[in-house]
Amino acid sequence: MNRLKVLFHVNESGRWQRVLVNISNFLNDVGQGNADIEVVANGEAVSIFGNRCLLAGGDGQGASCGTANGSLVEQMKKLSEMGVNFVACRNALKGQSIDEDSLPNFLIVVPAGITEIATKQAEGYAYIKP
Amino acid sequence: MNRLKVLFHVNESGRWQRVLVNISNFLNDVGQGNADIEVVANGEAVSIFGNRCLLAGGDGQGASCGTANGSLVEQMKKLSEMGVNFVACRNALKGQSIDEDSLPNFLIVVPAGITEIATKQAEGYAYIKP
Amino acid sequence: MNRLKVLFHVNESGRWQRVLVNISNFLNDVGQGNADIEVVANGEAVSIFGNRCLLAGGDGQGASCGTANGSLVEQMKKLSEMGVNFVACRNALKGQSIDEDSLPNFLIVVPAGITEIATKQAEGYAYIKP
Repeated sequence: MNRLKVLFHVNESGRWQRVLVNISNFLNDVGQGNADIEVVANGEAVSIFGNRCLLAGGDGQGASCGTANGSLVEQMKKLSEMGVNFVACRNALKGQSIDEDSLPNFLIVVPAGITEIATKQAEGYAYIKP
Repeated sequence: MNRLKVLFHVNESGRWQRVLVNISNFLNDVGQGNADIEVVANGEAVSIFGNRCLLAGGDGQGASCGTANGSLVEQMKKLSEMGVNFVACRNALKGQSIDEDSLPNFLIVVPAGITEIATKQAEGYAYIKP
Repeated sequence: MNRLKVLFHVNESGRWQRVLVNISNFLNDVGQGNADIEVVANGEAVSIFGNRCLLAGGDGQGASCGTANGSLVEQMKKLSEMGVNFVACRNALKGQSIDEDSLPNFLIVVPAGITEIATKQAEGYAYIKP
């Protein structure tokens, strides 16, 4: 079998946990380093990158943070270190008034999430919407 | 990069606004005329084409209409004039008791939405579910 | 047109009825035997295979069953006899504490649903998330 390429699309905050579990299970199944994985967040889903908790700490671990969001961004960071790409839509960030300077370092910003999703599928990525 | 082909799948009325924003942002990014875009509506999502407001005016601007639905159909009409195809599933229209004669002129009806979605992907369209 | 290949992804119990209606309409449109259809269930959607009703009867028709779930599994069984493949994710079954021995006979279990979805798309299956 050829190397699998998978794109996960997230446009609702409430789906993040599910997406990250899906990716962990997938990596456990195929083995770390044996698949190309990208997560594209647009719409309301990017709000996870803009909460006060993230702004406070810059890393999802702000002083007063015990929130689920901080924990989710930490999980993303760990997955990014395993090679998973996390991409956010600039239109969505603007729509949520999120300053790009405040974003986690691992996050890649693209002009339009839909273009990224379409381009990746044209490159052979499977599309999955958890 | 080859010309992008994108199919948007809508099966819930509450997703229409999000779909239309996605398409507008996408067109702004790639440039009008630089992508093939189709929207396939099935299930409950076709109900937007059957409300009294649309029947009254035929164009989403019936006499007593100040509804969001009328506005959404107007946005679709404008996007259709930019080349976006809007397709509805006949099974879904029947399921919602919507008379095909009452539909907006720009809307294309196909026997089964799922067949259309599968066929387009086989033709190289990316699938996006907003 | 080549034979259509379609993969349906279900990760929420509330979507099962919609998926089964989509498949029925699709088969009515293209004709039974004229398409390859697979349904991959992961996440919370597999809970339909674990309720007491199914355990009681093994076939979705346990003694005290008048539930919608039993009816849905019966519909799946009929579709499986028409050639539709129903696949469940082992991670999800474990997460819901569902014993694999109690599953309907027609259900295929794979180690990770995401791998199955990605692999099928790589084989030319269209992805549909109802």
